[in-house]
Amino acid sequence: MNTSSAISIRRARREDVEAIVKMLADDPLGRSRERIEHPLPSCYFDAFEAVDRDPRIQLVVAEDNAGAVVGCLELCVMPGLSSQGASLGLIEDVRVAMHCRSRGIGEKLVRWAVADARAKGCKLVELLTHHTRVDAQRFYKRLGFVPSHVGMTLRF
Amino acid sequence: MNTSSAISIRRARREDVEAIVKMLADDPLGRSRERIEHPLPSCYFDAFEAVDRDPRIQLVVAEDNAGAVVGCLELCVMPGLSSQGASLGLIEDVRVAMHCRSRGIGEKLVRWAVADARAKGCKLVELLTHHTRVDAQRFYKRLGFVPSHVGMTLRF
Repeated sequence: MNTSSAISIRRARREDVEAIVKMLADDPLGRSRERIEHPLPSCYFDAFEAVDRDPRIQLVVAEDNAGAVVGCLELCVMPGLSSQGASLGLIEDVRVAMHCRSRGIGEKLVRWAVADARAKGCKLVELLTHHTRVDAQRFYKRLGFVPSHVGMTLRF
Repeated sequence: MNTSSAISIRRARREDVEAIVKMLADDPLGRSRERIEHPLPSCYFDAFEAVDRDPRIQLVVAEDNAGAVVGCLELCVMPGLSSQGASLGLIEDVRVAMHCRSRGIGEKLVRWAVADARAKGCKLVELLTHHTRVDAQRFYKRLGFVPSHVGMTLRF
């Protein structure tokens, strides 16, 4: 399987949580922030339940044709007054499993999110990508995103 | 009144919508995106209703001691799996009325949002500020934010 054609995007289920957290942790920035233990700490399942019952948030996974979870993305559609009361789509936690990179899986996930946000009336989709992730910035530019803003963060 | 001490932060009400939209429009970037008409287009009130009934979103205003709305901010608290299932706080649509700048009103709004996000279990608060808004970036840095990310946007 060398293309994204055998990849399907579907809503994440509770049994995907471990695979998702592994992808979040398999990353220079994420490594120190996650806890990969067996069993997985319950905080992840609690967070999954909160995401799953929130009608404004969609956590989706990319699944290959063998049923393995190889990517994830979270989309939040947020109503607001600006731009004539248009909703805003925020994309977070985009990850593709290390061994499945460069197959168009990330592109499929992001295009899904953009299409879904647009279908829900968003006029703007935004995301923050760490300034060191130069490849990610190139990737998003190719999908039509513009590096128009500074993404400012405050971590406790 | 020269300080923010006479300013209170409170949840926005339907009767604040016009004042909020005026602030959104009174801005080089916002001007072309909003419609200031009398009466105000219903899209703004529809969006207000969507915001107001969403338990994850708070639209707040800064009110001076004469009861005038002189600032606004929207905070979205978004659950997610990353950082051990911590929620994320997203700050949007921060505005202070042109004639009330440099009085600490923006700082009061942002500090309120950061404290509220933290109280709700967020480990991270983030926002996007247009790369041309150099003053805004200096302001957020002073409040502890770091320009760690590139804010990428796709506008339809």
